[in-house]
Amino acid sequence: LPFGWLALSSALSIHTIVGLPEIVPGADVAQLLVDRLRTLPQSLLDNDIVVIAQKIVSKSEGRLRNLSDAIPGERAYELAQRTGKDPRLVQIVLDESTEVIRAAPGVLITRHRLGLVMANAGVDRSNVPQSTNTGTNSSERVLLLPLDPDASAAALRQRLCAAFELQSLGVIVSDSFGRPWRLGVTNVAIGVSGMPALIDRRGQPDRDGRRLEMTEIAWADAVAAAAGLAMGEAAESTPAVRVRGLNWTCGGGSAQDLLRSRQQDLFR
Amino acid sequence: LPFGWLALSSALSIHTIVGLPEIVPGADVAQLLVDRLRTLPQSLLDNDIVVIAQKIVSKSEGRLRNLSDAIPGERAYELAQRTGKDPRLVQIVLDESTEVIRAAPGVLITRHRLGLVMANAGVDRSNVPQSTNTGTNSSERVLLLPLDPDASAAALRQRLCAAFELQSLGVIVSDSFGRPWRLGVTNVAIGVSGMPALIDRRGQPDRDGRRLEMTEIAWADAVAAAAGLAMGEAAESTPAVRVRGLNWTCGGGSAQDLLRSRQQDLFR
Repeated sequence: LPFGWLALSSALSIHTIVGLPEIVPGADVAQLLVDRLRTLPQSLLDNDIVVIAQKIVSKSEGRLRNLSDAIPGERAYELAQRTGKDPRLVQIVLDESTEVIRAAPGVLITRHRLGLVMANAGVDRSNVPQSTNTGTNSSERVLLLPLDPDASAAALRQRLCAAFELQSLGVIVSDSFGRPWRLGVTNVAIGVSGMPALIDRRGQPDRDGRRLEMTEIAWADAVAAAAGLAMGEAAESTPAVRVRGLNWTCGGGSAQDLLRSRQQDLFR
Repeated sequence: LPFGWLALSSALSIHTIVGLPEIVPGADVAQLLVDRLRTLPQSLLDNDIVVIAQKIVSKSEGRLRNLSDAIPGERAYELAQRTGKDPRLVQIVLDESTEVIRAAPGVLITRHRLGLVMANAGVDRSNVPQSTNTGTNSSERVLLLPLDPDASAAALRQRLCAAFELQSLGVIVSDSFGRPWRLGVTNVAIGVSGMPALIDRRGQPDRDGRRLEMTEIAWADAVAAAAGLAMGEAAESTPAVRVRGLNWTCGGGSAQDLLRSRQQDLFR
């Protein structure tokens, strides 16, 4: 039996952190997480990674805009026609973007000012609480990405490290992204703190002593994707997850590490 | 305390299945996995998902080619010059592909005959045991993808279900893929059996009753990415992983479900 246990030696466990309230602008997400975690033995340990959905970060930071406040320009009207999207929404997407990558019916992919290539620059109409004091549609609100998700992750990390007296904690802010050649979305890391984002194994020999060819690992993206599985598991989607059991060394990774530069883009 | 436990209610656990021998052509991977799993209590349960690396499937199926057997054609020489790759390797990549997507120094991306858009059509020079009975370089061997990874997954699933008397088991054959706009590789599903690959949540209302916009979930890819984290965790990389704790319904998914058609391609 002891030998048997060795056959499943490396265990990774992913838990959702349930019971968070609806997050409103100004909410202290760090304290809410600390409160939820404190009720537990071994609530947070060194080498754990906390993954939180972009939405609750953006909501707490008040990154909301009213569609009715957007004044579409000529480019927004043109792209709205090509995509079939609301020109006001398109204007807000353009305000968040540095470049339009692809516009087609139902599809608007841009490079966000953070460098992220994604649909609608991350501007999200779903799961955004609407103002309730008007009866009109004109006040519909949309949610933008955090101003600086790496900084949001770092701030949360600092609070969690202080509360639980940790040295080595990773924090990821994640969002769901589509992929050019594959259908469906997976979660990726748009903010990273305290942990590596990209692990470079190029130049390390394989088991036969040859140099490995393609071995930059999108580690933070894989952790985000794994956390995304757990986030989707709860009856109602859960925006915070604890990942335990990974073996890593504290480091200064950034979500920027995961971005291909325009020069490295596989399509240019 | 009971309430405290509720705060981490949904747990996903990922274990590597260690102790597999080096896989040779003709190896009975299913039996090897059964043997490793049998030593354990609760070794495999309904709703578990087994993820195995493409390499051991391909090796067991004898999907090896000698570089020296490839006779490069004109197109292979031309692409070899553009990419800096061995013309014999390029010929083997072309033999596996239906279309060249991108060729640049160090980069050769094609559409594999299975529909997968990936680097070098999945042809792999690393971690391939070489013939030892010659002293020359000309016999260097490379590993191709399985002929039909969905079928490989289905065959493994059937054997595991029989051995452990299961009804609802998922099996994924995974491989590491690069992404156009993001650096690093993550694991994706190239073979799927017994489980959904793509989960379509379009049309389901969000919490405010609005229709969700972008909610096709690349579920099998996320499971593969999570398993990839555990595969990389062992001292030596481990090609088989057991995922437990996901809530899913047995279904007839295929890795083909995850492929964008050329018409849906975000770049055409």
